[in-house]
Amino acid sequence: MKIVVVGSVALDTVHTPDTCHSDLLGGSASYFSLSAVQFAPVGIVAVVGSDFSEVHLELLRGRGVDLAGLERRAGKTFRWEGEYGADPNQRRTIRTELGVFESFHPELPHGYIDSEALFLANIDPVLQLEVLDRAGKVPLVAVDTMNFWIDGHPDAVREVIKRAHVLVVNDEESRLLTGIDNPIQAAPQIREMGPEIVIIKKGAHGAATLGPWGWLLFPAFPVADVKDPTGAGDSFAGGLVGYLAGKDWRDRDRFAEGLAVGTAVSSLVVQDYGVSAIREERLADLEKRCQALRESTRFACPQGM
Amino acid sequence: MKIVVVGSVALDTVHTPDTCHSDLLGGSASYFSLSAVQFAPVGIVAVVGSDFSEVHLELLRGRGVDLAGLERRAGKTFRWEGEYGADPNQRRTIRTELGVFESFHPELPHGYIDSEALFLANIDPVLQLEVLDRAGKVPLVAVDTMNFWIDGHPDAVREVIKRAHVLVVNDEESRLLTGIDNPIQAAPQIREMGPEIVIIKKGAHGAATLGPWGWLLFPAFPVADVKDPTGAGDSFAGGLVGYLAGKDWRDRDRFAEGLAVGTAVSSLVVQDYGVSAIREERLADLEKRCQALRESTRFACPQGM
Repeated sequence: MKIVVVGSVALDTVHTPDTCHSDLLGGSASYFSLSAVQFAPVGIVAVVGSDFSEVHLELLRGRGVDLAGLERRAGKTFRWEGEYGADPNQRRTIRTELGVFESFHPELPHGYIDSEALFLANIDPVLQLEVLDRAGKVPLVAVDTMNFWIDGHPDAVREVIKRAHVLVVNDEESRLLTGIDNPIQAAPQIREMGPEIVIIKKGAHGAATLGPWGWLLFPAFPVADVKDPTGAGDSFAGGLVGYLAGKDWRDRDRFAEGLAVGTAVSSLVVQDYGVSAIREERLADLEKRCQALRESTRFACPQGM
Repeated sequence: MKIVVVGSVALDTVHTPDTCHSDLLGGSASYFSLSAVQFAPVGIVAVVGSDFSEVHLELLRGRGVDLAGLERRAGKTFRWEGEYGADPNQRRTIRTELGVFESFHPELPHGYIDSEALFLANIDPVLQLEVLDRAGKVPLVAVDTMNFWIDGHPDAVREVIKRAHVLVVNDEESRLLTGIDNPIQAAPQIREMGPEIVIIKKGAHGAATLGPWGWLLFPAFPVADVKDPTGAGDSFAGGLVGYLAGKDWRDRDRFAEGLAVGTAVSSLVVQDYGVSAIREERLADLEKRCQALRESTRFACPQGM
């Protein structure tokens, strides 16, 4: 397998001011894989319960996502229910039911060893470490985490971060990891913990990325008709890692291309509920979106100010 | 006068977790003029009290700011005292004493009529309208306002906005003006109220600007050593309007250059207390900062994704 993602496959119920959509295909691994598979074969390591619909499996398979690592177990699928306000940046979790995800123990199929890229989505860092131990030689390991794990398993989180090439954090996570409030100041310290590249994601404000070449700044693409922001971060990671897998990602210009792809994918995802927008997405639209982003950020520096 | 700014000249007291600086030269007109004067002559219309230090006046004059429109009146200068948290985006106002600013009535000196550019900083919109009535034919009128005026004088605010070429708002102000939560959706509606260009400022996240040519997205330049964020917005406006005064600002590439200059100036300002950073600023540093911003935002779109 070229790309492997370890994370959640879930059933989401999403409330917005006008609508409610229930039992949507959700979870980090779903969003990541559907975004990344546009660039290279992707395999999912996750677990679903006996209530998981065959329709969702067909959707993933139909798009070319490999499900050899998707365990199906007696019990309930991980469910998340949340509500977005009129301002879609305001999110409230109504309910989280872990179901079979509570005892999830990722098992990598043999064909997933020595992949080109591995994305460890936001799961227990102890499990992330187990995956790293079994994953073989992987030239690009990207990791996501969250405040809950940094607080609860700080040592395991640090060990994972040490072994990551690329770490994705938000402002709060960067603060928890370093004790520094300004993420711009925290990022160099996080790089010293291991990752060559630190991405500070800022939701509707884009992302600031620090690598050996300095900062790469990407605003989010402006979306007027945000329907469902769920999965934007995992889709961003999917576009980024999907594009960079097998490439010389240490190159500044390559990584910038990856960030552009990630930004473009995530801006498309939020324009429909669940994974609908990526599912129907055509590569031509992605390229167009990327070029629109480029046009919106293009400027020259005045000479001889 | 090439550029005129109507706003406040104030004495600021700024607390940060480690330090306190009192009686700093502050106010929108100070930050704006010191930023804009690097590009063209600027005149201030504002008022100070009898307690205002000659040192501050000398600083402004020494940098070439024209003070013919700066009224000196018996009474106290406008004072603002505020505190920034460890996260410099967290600001708390401790005290605001309007002093002579409370009865401020802007009078434009004769030489300020028919200027190349006019910046109406955040003051009572009724006064902004008076200035507009007296300012003559000004090819570039840029306006700032705030929630307080939009709530308190909605009709006057709308009249000012109608006559502005460029309007600067934040998320909350765009919501108050349109009733729309997503500023990306609100911006086109604000343009229909009059301004050709709407700038949505997002503090440490940069600015998104909508004009006839579409969106221009500028992230903030990453600053690790933020000392004092006061005046960042007015310095941004100073760099923007200063650079564009007398130029074809309707041109997309020109306006993008202006936004780059504004972004560069505001990123320099926050690196020292009060106006210290602009005061000692050399144009070479501004150009370097602009180029660093350009390098951090440069990317290509992958071909044939």
